[in-house]
Amino acid sequence: MKNIYLERLDTMLREGIDNEEELHRICEMLHPAVLGQRLSELDPEDAKAILDRFMPENQALVLSHFRKEKAGEIAELYMDEMLADIIELMPHDDRVDLIKQIPQERREKLLMKVEQPDRDDIMRLSMYEEETAGSVMTSEFVTLRDTMTVEEALVSIRKVAKDRETIYNAYVVDGYNRLTGIVTLRELLLYAGGTKISDIMNTDVVFARDDEDQEVVANRLSEYDLIAMPVLDEQNKIMGIVTFDDVMDVRKEEATEDFHKMGSVGLMNISLSDAPIKLLIYKRLPWLLVLVFMNIFSGAGIAFFEDTIEAVVALVFFLPLLIDSGGNAGAQASTLMVRALATGEVKIRDWFRLFSKEIFVAVIIGIIMGVAVSLIGFFRAGPEVAVVVSLTMICCVTVGSLLGMSLPFLLQKFNFDPATASAPLITSIADIAGVLMYFSIATWYLSI
Amino acid sequence: MKNIYLERLDTMLREGIDNEEELHRICEMLHPAVLGQRLSELDPEDAKAILDRFMPENQALVLSHFRKEKAGEIAELYMDEMLADIIELMPHDDRVDLIKQIPQERREKLLMKVEQPDRDDIMRLSMYEEETAGSVMTSEFVTLRDTMTVEEALVSIRKVAKDRETIYNAYVVDGYNRLTGIVTLRELLLYAGGTKISDIMNTDVVFARDDEDQEVVANRLSEYDLIAMPVLDEQNKIMGIVTFDDVMDVRKEEATEDFHKMGSVGLMNISLSDAPIKLLIYKRLPWLLVLVFMNIFSGAGIAFFEDTIEAVVALVFFLPLLIDSGGNAGAQASTLMVRALATGEVKIRDWFRLFSKEIFVAVIIGIIMGVAVSLIGFFRAGPEVAVVVSLTMICCVTVGSLLGMSLPFLLQKFNFDPATASAPLITSIADIAGVLMYFSIATWYLSI
Repeated sequence: MKNIYLERLDTMLREGIDNEEELHRICEMLHPAVLGQRLSELDPEDAKAILDRFMPENQALVLSHFRKEKAGEIAELYMDEMLADIIELMPHDDRVDLIKQIPQERREKLLMKVEQPDRDDIMRLSMYEEETAGSVMTSEFVTLRDTMTVEEALVSIRKVAKDRETIYNAYVVDGYNRLTGIVTLRELLLYAGGTKISDIMNTDVVFARDDEDQEVVANRLSEYDLIAMPVLDEQNKIMGIVTFDDVMDVRKEEATEDFHKMGSVGLMNISLSDAPIKLLIYKRLPWLLVLVFMNIFSGAGIAFFEDTIEAVVALVFFLPLLIDSGGNAGAQASTLMVRALATGEVKIRDWFRLFSKEIFVAVIIGIIMGVAVSLIGFFRAGPEVAVVVSLTMICCVTVGSLLGMSLPFLLQKFNFDPATASAPLITSIADIAGVLMYFSIATWYLSI
Repeated sequence: MKNIYLERLDTMLREGIDNEEELHRICEMLHPAVLGQRLSELDPEDAKAILDRFMPENQALVLSHFRKEKAGEIAELYMDEMLADIIELMPHDDRVDLIKQIPQERREKLLMKVEQPDRDDIMRLSMYEEETAGSVMTSEFVTLRDTMTVEEALVSIRKVAKDRETIYNAYVVDGYNRLTGIVTLRELLLYAGGTKISDIMNTDVVFARDDEDQEVVANRLSEYDLIAMPVLDEQNKIMGIVTFDDVMDVRKEEATEDFHKMGSVGLMNISLSDAPIKLLIYKRLPWLLVLVFMNIFSGAGIAFFEDTIEAVVALVFFLPLLIDSGGNAGAQASTLMVRALATGEVKIRDWFRLFSKEIFVAVIIGIIMGVAVSLIGFFRAGPEVAVVVSLTMICCVTVGSLLGMSLPFLLQKFNFDPATASAPLITSIADIAGVLMYFSIATWYLSI
């Protein structure tokens, strides 16, 4: 689907803005999400120059769709008064993300310029630790009392409909703001106007705790196919709601985190295009050094068998092939487990069952690969080396697979992220095991 | 969040069902999504025995939350008449998934027992190719005419509210069923009853084509924060809608696919727990064999340098360390690119810019690692080998990184999935390059 307005905006940005009126019209036709994302890619100064042409309401809306770090850069270019106005107009969850990007000293000065109720709301929402349900929720939701009738509820929803993130779920609370039930707008439309809310509300509400992990909360919302889920504190008071669009963002972020870990890259809260060289080095080097350190053990293993190698140099030909196969089989097994653990499809208690299954899978794969490499071994180095190579292959694949499938469980068990069991880590561990098995088998079988 | 009903159901399933009434009550209290997922884990016979206790409406609802392949197994246990009734009651997108699981011969017989309109709907929806927007859409949406007033629209929505997947977006169509606009229920509530739909509808609709790729469509819905998106055919006729919950499932599925590819595991449309041993072997072995085949080249490289190795056996100590480091750096770079390409954050045209950046990152990382291993080399094998090892390290990390970051772009360019550039594949390629560089540098520097 091509977007003609976006294409015309691109042309204008490239060739200079010669027609103010057309620029205005194009930006009005573009969805704030698309405009926000496109402007995110510009230099902050250029993006700000375009934003300045809009009404504050529209600036607020577009800014809420900027990439976090970019929104922070643009905020620096605003005067305090104007920025305070815009913050008052932004969706409540997005403005907290923006505020967090602003340096401490300015933040306090700025917040004093924001209206009291908005300021309190911002302070309350920014209290939550990152990666909790509280940190992604918004405070723009609809509440009802259970003594209302359906008609009264609809009137009350109509009144606030304009500035609530979603009006399709309404939350029924008692005098202490504790959640007692939920009604959907669909239900309100289906019942007669005089019906009491208490008679139609659903009291078995699926909810999140404000300090719960955002990934767990995201998986729950998705499991129940909900548009929004209330977030409660310890006293069951409703503190906010998490909506499906936030959950999609959370899940995308968490999947990216897992991908990066699986490639043994450190956590990055910034898009790859924007990441400075220093950050990329900083996020990649530590793991590479850890892995080099582990590889020293493979080297030491080889040194230990120096005599074996000198006796039959041909053994070295098969070294990369054997140790890599163990690492590859291990990487496959760990990938399967890491993903299944992340989606909740597999739990720690399933380890033993899956381990038993993995033994069969690994041994069968190992034997087939052993037969395959025995042919290569035979033609390249004779029957004796062929036997050594194929025996080692079976061992390498089996040990690599079992290590690869178990490590994610072990990490999860001790509260580490299972995705830390990355392909490079598994490969390095499998290498050490592979070197030791290979030369031990060779020394024994060839009687060196 | 513990679910006491689920815990009691588990106890009952374990210890035998002694209290029919309590089982009924528990199942009523459980959300169909939770019940469906829990029953999915049982043997088909046991799950069916529990389902049999419910009304057909509830069986349909719970079955729609079963894992696809499991729903198919349970369908086999139903008599045709009963299954046809249940299919009529299921959500339109889920029942198509179920029908696809039923063997061809039975499917035709079964469909003849389903009421005409439902049968037509099933046939129409199952026509679409897998992984297209058409294959995940549902036909349960609300349409309006632009000549209606807001009040008439609300009356018409109320009438169908019960059995539409979402009523929060209503689609305005002309006499040929072509989409002309969209109104949200929120807007309908905000405007006076007499307002014409044509005056308030939004004509700049974000939509999907029925043959578009599901991942692209999912990313679009998420970008615009939409609850649902209309799916149009070539004539702009509305064929169905894709809702946010389907999109969450699609994105989860696509992320899992990418994870598995990155671990060089073949595509599996079945959960890990249910996957039979044969399937696991079948999905893992081919890549392992391809990689072994590639490793033969590393072996050949080593064989070519046999004299060098015999002259300085100590070189072998550093072999795993050097070739692994190149592979690891490459795996990091490819992981970053694969994920950024999948989320659309980076496009093919960005390759050159990122390649230039990668050169800096890789060379700096290479130099730091080169210095680190030169120390190891010095203490283990003297100054000359130390120089060879650290020079090789710089080359390995640089070449590995540039290969790793470029391969995903190359694959995408030729319409392969960039995730095919898995850590094991990159490792194997980096191994070959590493072996050649290592022994070439050694032969040259040590003048062997």
